[in-house]
Amino acid sequence: MAKVGIVMGSDSDMPVMSKAADMLEKFGIEYEMKIISAHREPDVFFEYAKTAEEKGFKVIIAGAGMAAHLPGMCAAIFPMPVIGIPMHTTSLGGRDSLYSIVQMPSGIPVATVAINGGANAGILAAKILATSDPELLAKLKAYTQEMKEQVEAKDAKLQETGYRNYSK
Amino acid sequence: MAKVGIVMGSDSDMPVMSKAADMLEKFGIEYEMKIISAHREPDVFFEYAKTAEEKGFKVIIAGAGMAAHLPGMCAAIFPMPVIGIPMHTTSLGGRDSLYSIVQMPSGIPVATVAINGGANAGILAAKILATSDPELLAKLKAYTQEMKEQVEAKDAKLQETGYRNYSK
Amino acid sequence: MAKVGIVMGSDSDMPVMSKAADMLEKFGIEYEMKIISAHREPDVFFEYAKTAEEKGFKVIIAGAGMAAHLPGMCAAIFPMPVIGIPMHTTSLGGRDSLYSIVQMPSGIPVATVAINGGANAGILAAKILATSDPELLAKLKAYTQEMKEQVEAKDAKLQETGYRNYSK
Amino acid sequence: MAKVGIVMGSDSDMPVMSKAADMLEKFGIEYEMKIISAHREPDVFFEYAKTAEEKGFKVIIAGAGMAAHLPGMCAAIFPMPVIGIPMHTTSLGGRDSLYSIVQMPSGIPVATVAINGGANAGILAAKILATSDPELLAKLKAYTQEMKEQVEAKDAKLQETGYRNYSK
Amino acid sequence: MAKVGIVMGSDSDMPVMSKAADMLEKFGIEYEMKIISAHREPDVFFEYAKTAEEKGFKVIIAGAGMAAHLPGMCAAIFPMPVIGIPMHTTSLGGRDSLYSIVQMPSGIPVATVAINGGANAGILAAKILATSDPELLAKLKAYTQEMKEQVEAKDAKLQETGYRNYSK
Amino acid sequence: MAKVGIVMGSDSDMPVMSKAADMLEKFGIEYEMKIISAHREPDVFFEYAKTAEEKGFKVIIAGAGMAAHLPGMCAAIFPMPVIGIPMHTTSLGGRDSLYSIVQMPSGIPVATVAINGGANAGILAAKILATSDPELLAKLKAYTQEMKEQVEAKDAKLQETGYRNYSK
Amino acid sequence: MAKVGIVMGSDSDMPVMSKAADMLEKFGIEYEMKIISAHREPDVFFEYAKTAEEKGFKVIIAGAGMAAHLPGMCAAIFPMPVIGIPMHTTSLGGRDSLYSIVQMPSGIPVATVAINGGANAGILAAKILATSDPELLAKLKAYTQEMKEQVEAKDAKLQETGYRNYSK
Amino acid sequence: MAKVGIVMGSDSDMPVMSKAADMLEKFGIEYEMKIISAHREPDVFFEYAKTAEEKGFKVIIAGAGMAAHLPGMCAAIFPMPVIGIPMHTTSLGGRDSLYSIVQMPSGIPVATVAINGGANAGILAAKILATSDPELLAKLKAYTQEMKEQVEAKDAKLQETGYRNYSK
Repeated sequence: MAKVGIVMGSDSDMPVMSKAADMLEKFGIEYEMKIISAHREPDVFFEYAKTAEEKGFKVIIAGAGMAAHLPGMCAAIFPMPVIGIPMHTTSLGGRDSLYSIVQMPSGIPVATVAINGGANAGILAAKILATSDPELLAKLKAYTQEMKEQVEAKDAKLQETGYRNYSK
Repeated sequence: MAKVGIVMGSDSDMPVMSKAADMLEKFGIEYEMKIISAHREPDVFFEYAKTAEEKGFKVIIAGAGMAAHLPGMCAAIFPMPVIGIPMHTTSLGGRDSLYSIVQMPSGIPVATVAINGGANAGILAAKILATSDPELLAKLKAYTQEMKEQVEAKDAKLQETGYRNYSK
Repeated sequence: MAKVGIVMGSDSDMPVMSKAADMLEKFGIEYEMKIISAHREPDVFFEYAKTAEEKGFKVIIAGAGMAAHLPGMCAAIFPMPVIGIPMHTTSLGGRDSLYSIVQMPSGIPVATVAINGGANAGILAAKILATSDPELLAKLKAYTQEMKEQVEAKDAKLQETGYRNYSK
Repeated sequence: MAKVGIVMGSDSDMPVMSKAADMLEKFGIEYEMKIISAHREPDVFFEYAKTAEEKGFKVIIAGAGMAAHLPGMCAAIFPMPVIGIPMHTTSLGGRDSLYSIVQMPSGIPVATVAINGGANAGILAAKILATSDPELLAKLKAYTQEMKEQVEAKDAKLQETGYRNYSK
Repeated sequence: MAKVGIVMGSDSDMPVMSKAADMLEKFGIEYEMKIISAHREPDVFFEYAKTAEEKGFKVIIAGAGMAAHLPGMCAAIFPMPVIGIPMHTTSLGGRDSLYSIVQMPSGIPVATVAINGGANAGILAAKILATSDPELLAKLKAYTQEMKEQVEAKDAKLQETGYRNYSK
Repeated sequence: MAKVGIVMGSDSDMPVMSKAADMLEKFGIEYEMKIISAHREPDVFFEYAKTAEEKGFKVIIAGAGMAAHLPGMCAAIFPMPVIGIPMHTTSLGGRDSLYSIVQMPSGIPVATVAINGGANAGILAAKILATSDPELLAKLKAYTQEMKEQVEAKDAKLQETGYRNYSK
Repeated sequence: MAKVGIVMGSDSDMPVMSKAADMLEKFGIEYEMKIISAHREPDVFFEYAKTAEEKGFKVIIAGAGMAAHLPGMCAAIFPMPVIGIPMHTTSLGGRDSLYSIVQMPSGIPVATVAINGGANAGILAAKILATSDPELLAKLKAYTQEMKEQVEAKDAKLQETGYRNYSK
Repeated sequence: MAKVGIVMGSDSDMPVMSKAADMLEKFGIEYEMKIISAHREPDVFFEYAKTAEEKGFKVIIAGAGMAAHLPGMCAAIFPMPVIGIPMHTTSLGGRDSLYSIVQMPSGIPVATVAINGGANAGILAAKILATSDPELLAKLKAYTQEMKEQVEAKDAKLQETGYRNYSK
């Protein structure tokens, strides 16, 4: 049974939302991914948000751009954590998406990650589930170790090649 | 029968929303004013937006601040014009409200007015109704004349007093 | 007789303004499209704005970029709704256009849509006219249904292909 | 045993952080509140972050202003969710705090809430814990109901008094 | 005969515009000050701008706030320099005014000064007139000397009192 | 004898500064163009600014980017008008240049034009000189007429081709 | 002999600049404080910057607001480090000052601290001098210890009183 | 023994950080360059910062992007000057990096240079070391002379070719 719902308002958000899914797959977390527009199909959206709990979702990851209402409207209906991903936008660089998602009024938080932060949204969902899942927590710690080793490998390469040859 | 719905997400928006109502009263337009939070009572909000047409509304004026979803969600459901008023905010000066309201995706416009532009929202609603109401159009033209005379009176005072005594 | 005037300050705005015209054509609304610069030919502009009502216009859609005065100056003269489209700009991303259009002083509203929001301007004009035109209103509802089906089709494709193959 | 750590970089953040604590108390969640500066006492901070898991923390709520590093540095060490509260600042309105907290690089998410969003941070912590605590989830749903009733009461007052007398 | 026209869109701009007039008086330059709204009385405005040259104006100083169209519309009609003063605004700090004035399209420059820069607008008008008036140029140089002496006096006071007693 | 000095801090500003020169040539105004960096050769800069008056300059056009000090430092020394051109910048879009040029303290105005507004700087210089040169004023009026005709020609083309074929 | 020059463009900057002086006094570093305006007395400024090295200055701390040219112009002339303090401004919150100081072109760095960061400028000057002064370095370490103890004392108070009584 | 530590959070920062190294090499200053992520390997980072003094570092140059914590966390531990380089970012143009680095709280300054200001960071480090190294100071002065000559050569080319042929 899927524990995480991934929902985006437009398929143009797919490249960013995919990274969230990649992370959930990496950690072995079941999820369901949907394209649902709160603006273009409000009834479908309402049904989705209202039935999310009974489908077994513990977390919803919602991505949207510009006047991004999807994450906040999910948070108005779904009683557990909603993670919001603000999409980069051409004109305002994603400030519009960011402000529309993070500046929620008192009572209805959205756990906001960086602009285009798809991977971080997936990791944050995993961290939330790990609060009651020691096995998942162990996987997250292993991932942390993995990241550390990647940086160490890059530094080792730098020490070996020097900065002038690093990118060659 | 009310032709305009005025709706705000919080009673802290009342000072701004009142100016919209004042304008409608000035032009003799019936309206209904409600406090409804899309975030705190999504069911109430949905019912409101869905029944707005059958109640006779031709225009909805929606005001909201911060991650301001109320105008856009009205526009997703109500088929006629929605006017959005972005509220001034302490931290971001209302940019958050403005972007959340004006940057709507293709297909679901919100007719956005200035930050805290309550009076202009009322006037814009009147202008919309005036497209099919010559009597109302005449009232709007009279109001334009009135504004002109107010500026002329101020200039006349300036010519009389000089700038040093103008504000005394 | 044209019910909507579309006016732009420069032919560089054509790609955005065309989308407004496309929408009006889709809904069967007659319009007139003009290139008129409030800055480069103020007399032509004044004549245009003053005669707009007698030409039968119910709505003007005005697009402009940078220090965008065309929509606001239309609104100062034309007594019915003016819809403003802020153009994206290279240096400020369209904030200059947006602020120049939306931040109108009390008494002279401009119904502002998103940066480069040409299609939404056309739809908003249609919504305004639909307040007194049930047939047009029906067309708008059909369009809403159309948008809904487009999103549903995309989601169906996603469910079929999975996200990894979605864009292939 | 405390399940939530609340940590702030300066006691000037207390008015905002208190609201997070108030919410945790409302939901009956044990917490520990500390003043620890990542900049002024990095050793104390490191010890705090490293021992947070063994103290039983499931979530850390970290608030900071300006170049706000506390939430991100917590997230670099603590393996479960870190909620970041950007503090309002005089010069930049909290944009500096917000960007310093939300724009985390890939791999180390901070669940960011609104500028000065103390109450929402507390509620988000509760929602995270509620993913494995049905009793807490029930309390959250009751709180949602409570918020709904507060708005309904305000609207009822408005309908009774009219907007002109609402604030008197 | 007045050589400089000072025009403002609203009498709320008077405190800033007065400083421009003060400077012109200091330099003995004749001017005419008017309150004219391009938005509220476009006909009055057009007549003003069109007759400015024949009244003998060599420079127009125009101040406006928010969607500030007055300076740019003056520059569209009056063939000599127009100096624009962006007014400070509560929500956007005057960025709206500044962008609406300075970001003029190619062909129609507005000589823009700082937000609320009334005194500088007056000085700039004097500098423009001084390009053909050696006596006025001498006065401007004397003013420069005066400013220098004011700073020197402040520094002398600092050297005497020390910084701790400077403001006492 | 050159009446206008054009000065830029770096030859990367040449494409923008060239447009100022083009305009001066169009109006038959003699000018001198220099590359002088206030930061990299302060002595050369000081000498330039101090001798500008005796060389016969009536106006200086100064362009600079980022922390753009050249226009303001010219204005501190040269007693007649200085026109500042803020250069577009990659990271901040030219806001850094704009603020560094337009936000001058009281007493030392810089007549600021739009970001990358090279042509407008040239036109503004011509307008300044035209305050005492009726022949030049006539040329400026002819240029205004020319701009008007260009827009009219574009509109005529639009009326002929329709918007769908306009850009083909 | 003074090792640090503190210079401000206006005595309105005194409250911020005083904090830099306070820090230098705390660390026993000799300094000279001056009010010198690069804009209002460029000759005085040039003389100051050119003679700073021979007066024994190793560091200059320069504060300025709005179009803040003083730090950058110091850095153009003085060959050792210049620390820039951007002043808070009413309209733009100090962004104008910050961009004018930090965005220096390649070759002429200004070591920029936070908006209104007077104390930090003093500490940074001390850190620079401490690179060759072990005794001063020891004082800086003691100050770091002092800051740590202040935070610890605040936390101790919090643990004792609880957050509800903390501010009473 | 290396006197300057260059540290970056990610190898994507290498093109900018290389310019700092280039400058140090130009001035004959020994340095050590490392890739260390404060977020991905906090233990490695802490060890680095704590041992920097005993390795002989007098200055650390730290570059980071987005929520850029590396420079500030270095400054919290290393007792001598830390120079921060804010990296340009796609969405926010580097404002996020800039604010995260420059807006440090009182007590822990970071000497911030321009966005992507790698070369200036290297020069600033040299200037800091030059406060106690007359030979290095002489090299810095020679570099200043070199920059001056480069600008003079560009201007000479302009005088020879004219602006139309300058870039050919």
